[in-house]
Amino acid sequence: VLGEFDLIDRLRERIAAAGASRNDLLILGSGDDAAVTVPGGATATSVDAIVDGVHFRRSTHKPADIGAKAMATAVSDLAAMGAEPGEAYVQLGLPEDIELAELEGIADGLGEAAAEEGITVAGGDVVGSPVLFLALTVVGHAEAPEALVTRGGAEPGDLIVITGPVGGAAAGLLLLDRPELARGLDEPIAQGLRRRQLRPRALPAAGRALAEAGARAMIDVSDGLEADAGHIARASRVRIEIDLGADRIQAGVAEVASAAGEDALDLAAGGEDYELLAAIPAGQADVALEALRETGCDPALVGRVADGEGVVLRGPTGRESSGSGFDQVRSRAPRGPT
Amino acid sequence: VLGEFDLIDRLRERIAAAGASRNDLLILGSGDDAAVTVPGGATATSVDAIVDGVHFRRSTHKPADIGAKAMATAVSDLAAMGAEPGEAYVQLGLPEDIELAELEGIADGLGEAAAEEGITVAGGDVVGSPVLFLALTVVGHAEAPEALVTRGGAEPGDLIVITGPVGGAAAGLLLLDRPELARGLDEPIAQGLRRRQLRPRALPAAGRALAEAGARAMIDVSDGLEADAGHIARASRVRIEIDLGADRIQAGVAEVASAAGEDALDLAAGGEDYELLAAIPAGQADVALEALRETGCDPALVGRVADGEGVVLRGPTGRESSGSGFDQVRSRAPRGPT
Repeated sequence: VLGEFDLIDRLRERIAAAGASRNDLLILGSGDDAAVTVPGGATATSVDAIVDGVHFRRSTHKPADIGAKAMATAVSDLAAMGAEPGEAYVQLGLPEDIELAELEGIADGLGEAAAEEGITVAGGDVVGSPVLFLALTVVGHAEAPEALVTRGGAEPGDLIVITGPVGGAAAGLLLLDRPELARGLDEPIAQGLRRRQLRPRALPAAGRALAEAGARAMIDVSDGLEADAGHIARASRVRIEIDLGADRIQAGVAEVASAAGEDALDLAAGGEDYELLAAIPAGQADVALEALRETGCDPALVGRVADGEGVVLRGPTGRESSGSGFDQVRSRAPRGPT
Repeated sequence: VLGEFDLIDRLRERIAAAGASRNDLLILGSGDDAAVTVPGGATATSVDAIVDGVHFRRSTHKPADIGAKAMATAVSDLAAMGAEPGEAYVQLGLPEDIELAELEGIADGLGEAAAEEGITVAGGDVVGSPVLFLALTVVGHAEAPEALVTRGGAEPGDLIVITGPVGGAAAGLLLLDRPELARGLDEPIAQGLRRRQLRPRALPAAGRALAEAGARAMIDVSDGLEADAGHIARASRVRIEIDLGADRIQAGVAEVASAAGEDALDLAAGGEDYELLAAIPAGQADVALEALRETGCDPALVGRVADGEGVVLRGPTGRESSGSGFDQVRSRAPRGPT
């Protein structure tokens, strides 16, 4: 087996080979006590860890998918601030039984996703651990703190925009666990659901577009639609009402829910979709939607901000193509901030 | 049990209560997608993880010691750059069987060490994990990149300075594992050894003093004296010769080594002492030593930089107060950078 230092060298090479991104801010990468940058302006820093058996399974997730998911989900928090991705730092906890090929696959996935998300892997660390984990730190940049969008600025009268359909990640997980649920689905649609779970994408360009369009509060839909809307509602001291039309549920989700005996709205609100949810002044909604479309998103207005507290989430009412006809109102008390 | 969000709230309160430090750079702490800072100048970022059963043991380490050790060892990498500690981000992997009291103890230790080291806990994350781990990210600051000290600038003719005696952490670990080894030792000396293992301190003020005195390369003695000198030797493409006098071995180390049948030089080179090792131009050595003493260190010159490669480490020769009289020369090939 390789020693720690050889291993870090090897991983660094793989990540660099897979990720073509460059960072002009970076003076000194890994290989010293710390990475040195000259950020200027404002810096947004977020941390995110994933653990074998909790957030993924080595038995069913390919190594490259594990690395890519860790990177994309971390960058998603920068997207939700409207920050420009800058540097990523990767801490790997490695069990003794891990093979070099598996490690290289993880490094490839980290590097591929870093290149896709436009972030540079600037440093990292490798430690022994009984369980495989990846603990990422990502740093994003903006000209000034005011250019970044928190969760706390939503105001009554604002509209709620979402950058794309949801539910795919939860339905994809069901398909991975129970492949027979895909029987009635077109394969491209099933593949889209699985991919949403295995290879989520962050939306930093959409986040910046929303910030520039004047979004007053923003979050990614990673904990689930209700939970994340609840974070905004609580931080902004407002009530958020969401009407999720059938077009906001990813294709195939209703069919998978029906086959699994699950509620489609539960899947839609199940999290891990990494779409962005934002509160935008009503007068800016058209500008925001157009700017989002230009980044390649499929955005829509799905609700409004009102006086009060908590979240109301309504599902589509029997008009969606699946015909499974769910219609439901759920209300919940606000939870604490993360 | 508490939910994830309540738990984060609780931990944040404990850390804040224990750590009085403030950070003017910090605009927005945890509780949003990312922490926002306005760093200015240059930023040094380092990551460091510790894992139960690998770097500590829940069975023998008190929760507060675990938290404090994680924080101090992370900040030590900033000290070794000569950076001013700024912000820390804490990722906790928590097993299901962990009690709230143990968690609060860890938070207390994190907060206490943060206050001691002058760093602000600006964010964090909590995830489920089969094994307890703490993955820290620390960010330090300097006016410009040139003010930071890498491993790569040592030049032949430079002198090697160390900020204090070594070997205490390795001897302390032996005492924790085999309490009977302390029999011949004065209790305050044994306590000093155990504390060195359980509650290491970073030396950010010493690191800044060395940087200001013109240190050309610097590292902390965490991997072990030979290994860390080797990192400088390799990065600087020089040879480093160290003569470790008896005064450079922490009090009690020779006695513990003797009682355990171990080589005292092995303990001295055993790592985890978190003293700083630096290459300084010969003409600046007196200035550096005086500046270090003013920070409360007990520094000494222990070697020189020469043309060539690798590290030579010589131990004391029978004149130390313990009388155990070790005398040894070891040479090793340079290893890869970390």
